[in-house]
Amino acid sequence: MRISAALLTDRYELSMYAALLADGRVGAPATFELFARRLPEGRRFGMVAGLGRFLDALTDFHFDDDTLAWLQDAKVIDAATATSLANWRFTGTIRAYREGETWFPNSPILSVQAPLGEGLILETLALSIFNHDSAIASAAARMVLAADGRTLIEMGSRRTHEEAAVATARAAYVAGFSTTSNLAAGAAYGVPTAGTVAHAFVLAHQSEAEAFAAQMAAQGTGTTILVDTYDTEQGIATAVRVAQDLGATGPGAIRIDSGDLPTAVAAARAQLDSLGATDTKIVVTSDLDEYLITELALSAVDAYGVGTRVATGSGHPTAGFVYKLVELDDRPVAKRASGKANVGGLKTPYRYPDGREAFRVDGVVPPGARPLQVDVVRAGEVLPIPTLLEAREYAAAALADLPPAARHITSGPPATTAVLEGDPA
Amino acid sequence: MRISAALLTDRYELSMYAALLADGRVGAPATFELFARRLPEGRRFGMVAGLGRFLDALTDFHFDDDTLAWLQDAKVIDAATATSLANWRFTGTIRAYREGETWFPNSPILSVQAPLGEGLILETLALSIFNHDSAIASAAARMVLAADGRTLIEMGSRRTHEEAAVATARAAYVAGFSTTSNLAAGAAYGVPTAGTVAHAFVLAHQSEAEAFAAQMAAQGTGTTILVDTYDTEQGIATAVRVAQDLGATGPGAIRIDSGDLPTAVAAARAQLDSLGATDTKIVVTSDLDEYLITELALSAVDAYGVGTRVATGSGHPTAGFVYKLVELDDRPVAKRASGKANVGGLKTPYRYPDGREAFRVDGVVPPGARPLQVDVVRAGEVLPIPTLLEAREYAAAALADLPPAARHITSGPPATTAVLEGDPA
Repeated sequence: MRISAALLTDRYELSMYAALLADGRVGAPATFELFARRLPEGRRFGMVAGLGRFLDALTDFHFDDDTLAWLQDAKVIDAATATSLANWRFTGTIRAYREGETWFPNSPILSVQAPLGEGLILETLALSIFNHDSAIASAAARMVLAADGRTLIEMGSRRTHEEAAVATARAAYVAGFSTTSNLAAGAAYGVPTAGTVAHAFVLAHQSEAEAFAAQMAAQGTGTTILVDTYDTEQGIATAVRVAQDLGATGPGAIRIDSGDLPTAVAAARAQLDSLGATDTKIVVTSDLDEYLITELALSAVDAYGVGTRVATGSGHPTAGFVYKLVELDDRPVAKRASGKANVGGLKTPYRYPDGREAFRVDGVVPPGARPLQVDVVRAGEVLPIPTLLEAREYAAAALADLPPAARHITSGPPATTAVLEGDPA
Repeated sequence: MRISAALLTDRYELSMYAALLADGRVGAPATFELFARRLPEGRRFGMVAGLGRFLDALTDFHFDDDTLAWLQDAKVIDAATATSLANWRFTGTIRAYREGETWFPNSPILSVQAPLGEGLILETLALSIFNHDSAIASAAARMVLAADGRTLIEMGSRRTHEEAAVATARAAYVAGFSTTSNLAAGAAYGVPTAGTVAHAFVLAHQSEAEAFAAQMAAQGTGTTILVDTYDTEQGIATAVRVAQDLGATGPGAIRIDSGDLPTAVAAARAQLDSLGATDTKIVVTSDLDEYLITELALSAVDAYGVGTRVATGSGHPTAGFVYKLVELDDRPVAKRASGKANVGGLKTPYRYPDGREAFRVDGVVPPGARPLQVDVVRAGEVLPIPTLLEAREYAAAALADLPPAARHITSGPPATTAVLEGDPA
């Protein structure tokens, strides 16, 4: 059977739906919020990504006949629930932080107001998408700060689940990466793609000269040549010679994927310049993260290719968001369990010009503060959201807007923690 | 456009294919191997998962017209390459470690013998699947050892990408988890699913008594009751009373999701027993991993629900596999770059009864050693592989077969490292 988006969820969401349908509570007016109680240890801010994917999933979210038959066979739901789910559509209202917005502990980045059964059933899918995509964007944003204007290439597809790789490329692009290696992200989302050859290509030829000539014949002299298959110094000399034989001053770029990178980059730059290849750029790859990028700040690097560490959230592969019922029957509700308490009531979050974030539960935004949520679904209708390029521009502005201390890569406290202002609900 | 499995790849795979087609090297006989140079820090073994998904992806791997048109529009490939890819099908031979097999540094868990262009183009997809699924299985297997026969429930869907969640459930099941929360994994792979209610369900009722009664009405008294929404002791008392009103000795199980678990479990067991609910089982959740499971070894826990830490590989979300060209035109090849060198030639891996792993490049398996690879694709034809349940049984046997020191959860060296025996290629 084709797996419906509605099955990308935890069994208990549908078990609860069935029980709520049976006892008449499924239609009670409810509000859920998606937020994190804390940032990953040492992180000063997070970055939101995933909203566009979530809204796409919401549009595709329905229970077809095969799905309902399987759910009944598996004893997940009864016949009455199957009938109810066959007509399931989201009729509520959703407000959210924009993609590219920064987030902090307790930021309510998504608020879902809907009949209880409708809001409940979106929990797992919303969490999966926001936890993954925002973990990637949060790590990528730190790499963007560390790169300080230099180009970043996302190339982590091979280090993560094949579909997660597509979302990774998208989230890293929002955060400020320039390109991705992932073709599906190009086809699905228009993320610019990049990539030339791997070591296997060089090994597949009798010599580096032959490999580089074949590559330039296919891709032009402006391509990026991988120079460290055998000996980097010889590789660079050969790459420049082959490019110069074709009338260029050198290849468009060289890529170095091994060795001590600061040393290798300095030697490569000097060698390229001495050979007249002053326009040839240097791309470095090899287990980079925000810390290694920072270490290379004084090196003559033109572009960083980042793989494993961006695709795995640089030590924090999930953002830590939870999705909690905060209002029911127009009254605030909150779990009181130790260490997991939360504030009841629908929150209206905002940020002051000095970066402090707060929320009220009476809907008021204080003068001078900037509201943080925008309407994204109104009465079940998904509203247009910014394009990915606009989200990327928003992210760049959000990073520029961070307090100076929050821009540090070293461990430190959150730049702010969203707190309740005004009376509790 | 619908995204083809063939696009779940890095741009450079197709750039290389185009260049190899142009210079006549695309059909050269080649061998690629997928292996890891090391285990994650402190890990004593890894567990293979993903083979079944990889073979499914291989079956679905083709370039349709839309995909080829997009690739040409995006200047990834030229017209000649599009023509070649339109007829792409895998014609080679693949050998692999079974799902559920343990792996160590340098274990060649997948060997692909095929024309260069065919083997090359599978690189990213093979790595994505094996790196993800084996990272999950490797972490899950440690939790299985820690749980020492107690039931493990995979419930990490919300902490990882929504499609990765399905593969996570599958890999954890192979490693020995009993059930998953993920419905899609049930529908797609037949993994048994589990789940009853969340805190929102309790909060959605006027009282716990009302919530528990509604839950038992829908799911029977054998269900698992979440008792820590307000006060765990009161929650347990209420759960038992509601179940006893329905004629049972108690609910099937209670779930505790917060607080100091050893303390809470001891109190809960005593309370349940004092109320006559001696058959009621105790399920614990709340950020469990192999270390916390070990700490609970002496507690009266019946089942562990594990979320974030299994879905994120318990600190190691990717297995570290690489995919390297090791033979071309029937000659061994190997990159020589510092720190990334590898042994050329097609390897035949095997394990001795004492657990040591080695390989030869002459195809010989020494007497008394057990060969580790099986044929999974022959002349392009995907052969039947074990069912998921059989893979799970294989995994259990593989864990039982580990040397005692390798079964420890604490950090330590790999139980073995696969080394070359006999003459190099």
